[in-house]
Amino acid sequence: MVTRRLRDIGEHGWIARLLRTVPSGPRVLVGPGDDAAAVRAPRGAVLLTTDTLVQGTHFQLGWETDARLGQRALRINLSDVAAMGGRPLAALVALEAPANLPVAVLDGVMRGMIAEARRHGVDVVGGNLAAAPRLAITVTLVGEAIGPPVTRAGARAGDDVWVTGTLGGAGAAVRALLAGHSARRPPVPVRLGAARLLAPLAHAMIDVSDGLVQDLGHVCDASGVAAEVEVDRMPVAPACRRALGGDAAAFAATAGEDYELLLVVPPRHERRLQRLVPRLGCALTRIGRIVPVAPRSPTVRLGDDGGRPVRFGRSGFDHFRPR
Amino acid sequence: MVTRRLRDIGEHGWIARLLRTVPSGPRVLVGPGDDAAAVRAPRGAVLLTTDTLVQGTHFQLGWETDARLGQRALRINLSDVAAMGGRPLAALVALEAPANLPVAVLDGVMRGMIAEARRHGVDVVGGNLAAAPRLAITVTLVGEAIGPPVTRAGARAGDDVWVTGTLGGAGAAVRALLAGHSARRPPVPVRLGAARLLAPLAHAMIDVSDGLVQDLGHVCDASGVAAEVEVDRMPVAPACRRALGGDAAAFAATAGEDYELLLVVPPRHERRLQRLVPRLGCALTRIGRIVPVAPRSPTVRLGDDGGRPVRFGRSGFDHFRPR
Repeated sequence: MVTRRLRDIGEHGWIARLLRTVPSGPRVLVGPGDDAAAVRAPRGAVLLTTDTLVQGTHFQLGWETDARLGQRALRINLSDVAAMGGRPLAALVALEAPANLPVAVLDGVMRGMIAEARRHGVDVVGGNLAAAPRLAITVTLVGEAIGPPVTRAGARAGDDVWVTGTLGGAGAAVRALLAGHSARRPPVPVRLGAARLLAPLAHAMIDVSDGLVQDLGHVCDASGVAAEVEVDRMPVAPACRRALGGDAAAFAATAGEDYELLLVVPPRHERRLQRLVPRLGCALTRIGRIVPVAPRSPTVRLGDDGGRPVRFGRSGFDHFRPR
Repeated sequence: MVTRRLRDIGEHGWIARLLRTVPSGPRVLVGPGDDAAAVRAPRGAVLLTTDTLVQGTHFQLGWETDARLGQRALRINLSDVAAMGGRPLAALVALEAPANLPVAVLDGVMRGMIAEARRHGVDVVGGNLAAAPRLAITVTLVGEAIGPPVTRAGARAGDDVWVTGTLGGAGAAVRALLAGHSARRPPVPVRLGAARLLAPLAHAMIDVSDGLVQDLGHVCDASGVAAEVEVDRMPVAPACRRALGGDAAAFAATAGEDYELLLVVPPRHERRLQRLVPRLGCALTRIGRIVPVAPRSPTVRLGDDGGRPVRFGRSGFDHFRPR
């Protein structure tokens, strides 16, 4: 069987074929294929976020199906809109690909992305395709704010720190894959519904993409506070526990790509939070608290249940610092 | 002097430094640095477009200053919003860069982009930075429709075809640069003001990014018509004439990156068009007309002033087909 590659069909040929598969909802006034798309303006504020997956940096072909990769590229952006307490509306996708990339790969990526978009009421309204040495997928997601956006600033000393789902599962899988073992990277969770329920109670919210310590650090920096996390309370993913054993919690605290919600909530809302749990579709765990900034002390501190500090090697993922 | 590279400062270090230089207008509710930005919803429809510049594909470092490169990355998107007759509001920038890229390059790119954004009332509200083998700059531009968006569909047989500015200048410069000669690639023109004046008269509008023949072909395909272009009427850039001589017009008809406006206007508006010319800030030239589709005939035909067909090698730029 002959593999058809991008150079066989060409940029415009591929785009023309793709456009026939892109559905358009009632919000779309001008869909993909024109100079710009036009969508009805939302009532609330417009939320805007963008995130990229680069081959060799965020994935290797074969780590997951191409459709799962497309789904992932959308979901990491859905996660950002969720973390603001918003609703996603429309997506643009800027693709880079080498001329020898099999057409089937790009088809699979877009099939997965478009199916996932439909599932969440998101219209894929435009994009771009350019030649580049590696596959890269940049999604820009446009959403609508429902109520005031929940930012990273707003955490206050005395607030509790909560996290949805489990941590360390994605990191453990990537660690295994990079070591050449076979592993299944868990799909990025979609916490849109949970986020919308939780947002009205939260002083601050962020998605955990670069590691709990680092992302909680972003919240602390933006809020002018510090935080203490009790390692033994952390909801470590079972696969991470199996792979890392006694180091699992410290690993999970700094591993990236979990895309769970980290939220900071005043203690008076605890009962309201607990009542929401059955509707969240995921676990919700209190893992620590916000404290005042202390001189000569790290912004985010990990401790065991006896209050003794737990050391960790690095705070989280940085693109230009080695793992 | 020691060159500071991205790996020396890190992703988060670079972003933190950049954020201190990004101004925020009154439209911005949540600026860059959070999970998503929030901007006030526009009154008209939301326009959305994205375009990427990839090192080695669209530019080489040194072809222009880094600031000019950042300006270019924004302007190619401004051009798409202009071609819809809209007003740009906010931009997101997704950067990919290798760890050994000098920090000064990325600083220059963003300085040029932010300065250009300010000039046009655009807020840079967010972005992303990821490790990749080459520098790539993806800008997503959010705009507002003023009146009904002018699409590619809508051209009718009997309409005239007009183009702003001159063609072939960018193509001639890139041709020289690729051949190893020194040349100055002209900056992407900004036709936002001109487009807003012209849009109410146009049946269809597009920006000429991939070459006149190809982009006029997109208009014809979307409108179900064909077009005849009189080569001798084409406003060929002087630098293109000097470089290409007798082949200049055919070259200019298929060269990319001019980012001029191509518009299709019914002949009854000719006097109104002519009266607008002094306010456009650029030339406006009638170069051809829209005709019905003819069987076994190319969609876009070039002819000389005697009506004889003019041949051209390729229709325009395609990312996966060789030049």
